[in-house]
Amino acid sequence: MRRGENNGVVPTYTDLMNDDSRLAAARRLDAEDPLAPYRLLFEGHDDDAITAYLDGNSLGRPLSATIGRLTAFVRDQWGGRLIRGWDEDWLQLPQQVGDRIGRITLGAGPGQCVVADSTSVLLYKVIRAALALRPERSEIVIERDNFPTDRFIVEGIAADRGLSVRWVEADHDAGPTPEGVSRVLSRDTAVVVLSHVAYRSAHIADMEAITRQVHDAGALIVWDLSHSVGSVPVHLDACGADFAVGCSYKYLNGGPGAPAWAYVAQRHQTDLSQPIQGWLGSADPFGMGSGYQPAEGIRRMVSGTPPILGMLALQDMLDVLEDAGMDAVRAKSVRLTSFAVDTVEELMGSYGVTIASPRDPDQRGSHLTIDHPEFRTMLSDLWNDGVIPDFRNPDGLRLGLSPLSTSFEETFIGIRAIAEKLQANLLD
Amino acid sequence: MRRGENNGVVPTYTDLMNDDSRLAAARRLDAEDPLAPYRLLFEGHDDDAITAYLDGNSLGRPLSATIGRLTAFVRDQWGGRLIRGWDEDWLQLPQQVGDRIGRITLGAGPGQCVVADSTSVLLYKVIRAALALRPERSEIVIERDNFPTDRFIVEGIAADRGLSVRWVEADHDAGPTPEGVSRVLSRDTAVVVLSHVAYRSAHIADMEAITRQVHDAGALIVWDLSHSVGSVPVHLDACGADFAVGCSYKYLNGGPGAPAWAYVAQRHQTDLSQPIQGWLGSADPFGMGSGYQPAEGIRRMVSGTPPILGMLALQDMLDVLEDAGMDAVRAKSVRLTSFAVDTVEELMGSYGVTIASPRDPDQRGSHLTIDHPEFRTMLSDLWNDGVIPDFRNPDGLRLGLSPLSTSFEETFIGIRAIAEKLQANLLD
Repeated sequence: MRRGENNGVVPTYTDLMNDDSRLAAARRLDAEDPLAPYRLLFEGHDDDAITAYLDGNSLGRPLSATIGRLTAFVRDQWGGRLIRGWDEDWLQLPQQVGDRIGRITLGAGPGQCVVADSTSVLLYKVIRAALALRPERSEIVIERDNFPTDRFIVEGIAADRGLSVRWVEADHDAGPTPEGVSRVLSRDTAVVVLSHVAYRSAHIADMEAITRQVHDAGALIVWDLSHSVGSVPVHLDACGADFAVGCSYKYLNGGPGAPAWAYVAQRHQTDLSQPIQGWLGSADPFGMGSGYQPAEGIRRMVSGTPPILGMLALQDMLDVLEDAGMDAVRAKSVRLTSFAVDTVEELMGSYGVTIASPRDPDQRGSHLTIDHPEFRTMLSDLWNDGVIPDFRNPDGLRLGLSPLSTSFEETFIGIRAIAEKLQANLLD
Repeated sequence: MRRGENNGVVPTYTDLMNDDSRLAAARRLDAEDPLAPYRLLFEGHDDDAITAYLDGNSLGRPLSATIGRLTAFVRDQWGGRLIRGWDEDWLQLPQQVGDRIGRITLGAGPGQCVVADSTSVLLYKVIRAALALRPERSEIVIERDNFPTDRFIVEGIAADRGLSVRWVEADHDAGPTPEGVSRVLSRDTAVVVLSHVAYRSAHIADMEAITRQVHDAGALIVWDLSHSVGSVPVHLDACGADFAVGCSYKYLNGGPGAPAWAYVAQRHQTDLSQPIQGWLGSADPFGMGSGYQPAEGIRRMVSGTPPILGMLALQDMLDVLEDAGMDAVRAKSVRLTSFAVDTVEELMGSYGVTIASPRDPDQRGSHLTIDHPEFRTMLSDLWNDGVIPDFRNPDGLRLGLSPLSTSFEETFIGIRAIAEKLQANLLD
C-alpha cells in the first residue's frame, strides 16, 4: 500500500522520493516488456558508472556486436580483401544499406534510399535537387523552430540562389501543423523543409496531410527524419513524400558522426540532378572518362567515396530493428515516454517543471523535453553522476528514451536523480 | 654470379625469370632498409593469401593497432562516455587531427587544416570558397588529365555559376607543368585546380612554381593532394598555397571511405565562406539560435556532425608517420619505385611494356603505372592469385608502393607474377 493513499492526503514530495512504489512499477513494466531482452545486446547496459542514459535520441548506445563486426571488418575485409573489397561488396553498400533503412524503418520501396555524407551535406544536395525540379518558383518554406542545421542550410541556399525564405511560425514547441504550413504556401513555394519529429519537443508532424497540402500548392517536400528513423514508423511511399534525409547516429546506433541517408521518390529520379557531382555518383566512375554522366537512379545522389567503416555499426542496429519490428519498437517507445511523463509530473510537477512535449502519445516521438530555469546549471553535475540527459535552450532537459536500449527502471532512476538534484538546488 | 654476366650475353627473359639475383637484391634492400620494421605493424603482412599488395596508393593497409583503437573506442568512448564524448573530445577532433596531418605531412602550421566530408564534397566547398574570393573573375582552370571527381566537380560548379572551364592540355601522363598552366592563365582566371601527384602517372607537379604563376595572374590555387599526403612531403605554407584537399584512405591508411581533409591558408580565413553552412561550422552550434554565424577560422569549413569513428584509423597512421619521419618515408618511396622501374624493365621490357611514370624519381610519387594492351584482361587472374595492383584506363596496371607497408621483396614478387602472367598470355 502506498503511503498517503489510505487517508486521502496527497503525498508530499519527500514521501514520493522515498517511495518505492514507482520503482516497483518500473520494474514490473520491464518484466512485462517483450522487448526487454534486447537491452542486453547493448554495450554498457551493466556499467555501474552509467546510472541512466537518457540521450539515445542524440547518440544511440553501441551494440556489443559492433565490436566484433569492426574487428572482423578490419582483419578480413579491409585487411584481407584490400582494394578488391570495393568490387566485391563495398561499392554497393550505400544502396544496399539504404534499401534496408527504407524497408525496415521508412516504408520506402527499394531503389529510393542511399547512405552518404552527413545530414547537413545531404540536406544541401536534396534541397538543391528539389529546387532544380521547380525552377520557376522563388521561395523555400521552413519552420522557425526547425533544427539549426536545416535552417542554416536553407538560408545559405536561399542567399546563394536569390530565393526567399518563408517561415512557418509555430507556437514554441508545437511543431509544424497543417494549418501553420497552409498559411505560408503559395504559388511561389518551390520546396518545403520540415522535421517530422521536432528535435526539442518530439512533436510529430502530420506527414500525410502536410505532404498533400504541399503537393496541392505545386511544391515539393523535404522531410528531415533524424529524430524519427528507428523509433517512429514512417510511411514515405504511402504519404507520397518527395525527399527525405536523416542521420544514423541516433536510433540507428551508427556511432558518433556516422553517415546520413537520403530518400528520393522514384518518380523524381529520372530528372534528378544535384550540385556535388562527384565520381562515385557518375555512371562509370572507373571509366575515368571526360564529362560527368549521372548514374541511374538514387546512386546519383552519391558524391565521394562511400564511408564504408562508418556504415558498419548501423547495420547491426538494422538487424536488431528488423528482428524486433518497428511496430513493437513504437509501442515500447509510447509506453516509455508515457511512463516518463507520469514520473516527471509526480516527482517534479510541484517544483514548476513543465513538459514541453505533447501529452498525446500519438503526437510524441521517443524523447521528452522538460523545462525548468534551474536545469542549465544542473547538467554538469548530473553527467558527473552518470545521469545523462542533454540540455536544449532555453531551459530544457531532453530525455531520450531509446526503445530497445532504455529500460523503465533506468528511466525512473534517471528522472528521480534529476528530481533530487532539482530539490537540492532549490533548497540550496 | 648472375647467369649471363660472365660471357657478355644479354640474359634471356626466361633466364631472368628463373634467376634469383633480383630476388636476392630485393631481400638485401629490405635488410638494409631502416624502415623495414614498420611493415610488421600492418595487418596482413604475413597473410599467405596476399602474395603482393601493390595498391596501397588506392587503399592503404590497416595497422594492427587500429583494431585495438576501434574496440577501445566503442567500449570506453562511445559506450562509456556516450554523449559526453562530444564535449570532452570529439568536437575538437576535426581540427586536432587536421593540425596533425598538416604538421606531419603537409608543411602546414596549426589552424589551417580540418577533417570532414569526402574529398569530392570538400573539393566542392573549397572551390566555391575560392571563387567567392574572386567574384569578378569568370574562369576555372583545371588539367584535362586530372582525376575524374576533380573535373566533374569543377564542371558542375562552372555550369551552375555560369563560369567557363579552361583546360590545361598535357601530354598524356605528363602532369601539369608550369608551361602548360601559364598558357591558359589570364585576367579572367579565378581558381586553378590541380593534382600535385597525378593519379595515373604519379608525376609530381612543381607546386612552388605553379602556385607563384597562379598568384602572378591574380588567381587562387586549389591543390588536390590525395596521392601525395603521407608519401611525398608537401610544403603548403612555404609554397604559399591557398587551398588544398586530400583523402585519408591512401597513404594515411584511414580505411575504405575514411573522411577527407582540407587546408585553407590563414590569410584567407577571415573572409572565408562556403556554401554548405551546417550547424557544426557555426559559431555556437548548441546555442540553437537563429541565423548562421560562421565559426572563427578553419572550423567554418565543417558542415555536419564530424565522422568520429571514421577518423580513428588515420590517427594510428599519423603516429607511425610521425615516428618514421616524412623525409625517411620519401627516401624509401624513391628506392621502392626505382627498384620497381628497374624490375619492370628487366622482366617485361622485351614484351613491349612501357612505363607511364617519370623516370626521374624527383618527378615521381609513390606509385608506378605500366602499360600493355594485355593488362586489362589479366587483372582478375592476378587478384585471384593474391597479386593486387589496380587497373587504370586505357591499359595501365598501377603499382602503388606504400613506403611503410610495402617491402622490396613484395614488390619483386608482385612484378614477377605480372611478368609471368603476361608471358603466359602472350604465348597462349
